[in-house]
Amino acid sequence: MNRGRPRSGHIDQAVAEAVRELLGEHGYQPLSIDKVAARAGVGKAGIYRRWRSKAEMVFSVVVHGTRLVPPADTGTLRGDLAALAGHIVALLSAPDARAVVPGLVADIAADPALAERFAAEFIDRERAVLGEILDRAAGRGELPAPGDAAFAHALLLGPIFTYLFLSGGEPPPGLPDRLAGAVLAALGAKE
Amino acid sequence: MNRGRPRSGHIDQAVAEAVRELLGEHGYQPLSIDKVAARAGVGKAGIYRRWRSKAEMVFSVVVHGTRLVPPADTGTLRGDLAALAGHIVALLSAPDARAVVPGLVADIAADPALAERFAAEFIDRERAVLGEILDRAAGRGELPAPGDAAFAHALLLGPIFTYLFLSGGEPPPGLPDRLAGAVLAALGAKE
Repeated sequence: MNRGRPRSGHIDQAVAEAVRELLGEHGYQPLSIDKVAARAGVGKAGIYRRWRSKAEMVFSVVVHGTRLVPPADTGTLRGDLAALAGHIVALLSAPDARAVVPGLVADIAADPALAERFAAEFIDRERAVLGEILDRAAGRGELPAPGDAAFAHALLLGPIFTYLFLSGGEPPPGLPDRLAGAVLAALGAKE
Repeated sequence: MNRGRPRSGHIDQAVAEAVRELLGEHGYQPLSIDKVAARAGVGKAGIYRRWRSKAEMVFSVVVHGTRLVPPADTGTLRGDLAALAGHIVALLSAPDARAVVPGLVADIAADPALAERFAAEFIDRERAVLGEILDRAAGRGELPAPGDAAFAHALLLGPIFTYLFLSGGEPPPGLPDRLAGAVLAALGAKE
């Protein structure tokens, strides 16, 4: 259904709705920027100004956009890390994300230029959020040294990805808090 | 090239060589059990007796077979975990593995029956290796309680997978020892 060409401020929303509808109807593999443009009633140029590939568009819509922000300050490093881990579990456990993430990862791995943009757009942003959480903790005196945000990111995201997409199971109850504890211990944090 | 039908004891080796050759020539996507059988000069039935899908055959040949065993006892939990993490880094960093693992993960995620067999065949075996390492540590008095092998497995495998396949980079130097330290701390091990 063509809804009429949306005004520029509404393009993001029209694209997001079209991506979700098309994923629900046919899955990730047959999705294309052409089909999304047609369904959303927007020009392809408008889509390509925002995202350079199908994979980036889908990841941005389904997993997280460019507005990833640190969770509210809980007052402790453990609380902040557990909140972020819980957020990642929720994002990746959503049915849309479960359906598309493994295909996205395969697309990214097969295309070095896409892999580089993906790392710069999304992974660096996630690491920056971790960096802000670790800086808060250093400010409170909870960390003995500036933390390694990339390592903390891998320790949070990696096990969640493993439970959801590699080991055929569900993240066990309490995983966010256990991961927060593992990161605290790995960074030598005081509690 | 048909090398003549190999004797049954040599089927594994003939299949492994054919899989590696075909991956090198055309990559993962166009590989099929038919093509492997033809290249190896073995019957398809012999392949299907060993593996029930292309994904299982390729994972077994390229990443690890059914003979995964715990690394030699290093005398400490930290040493055993670092040795295992180093082994996983080496397995997944090999050019063949880099080329096929993301496509395998996507295939597995798209097929619940395959996901179940993959978890039973490979993930459970990896967790059993971790379990044996944790049991050794408990026997030495290094662990206060029986360790959670599935959690330790996710803490080792997940970050390695993240560095290699999600964040577009290389595992940083010293990663195996840092991961061993994170697992020790998460399990409350004495050093």
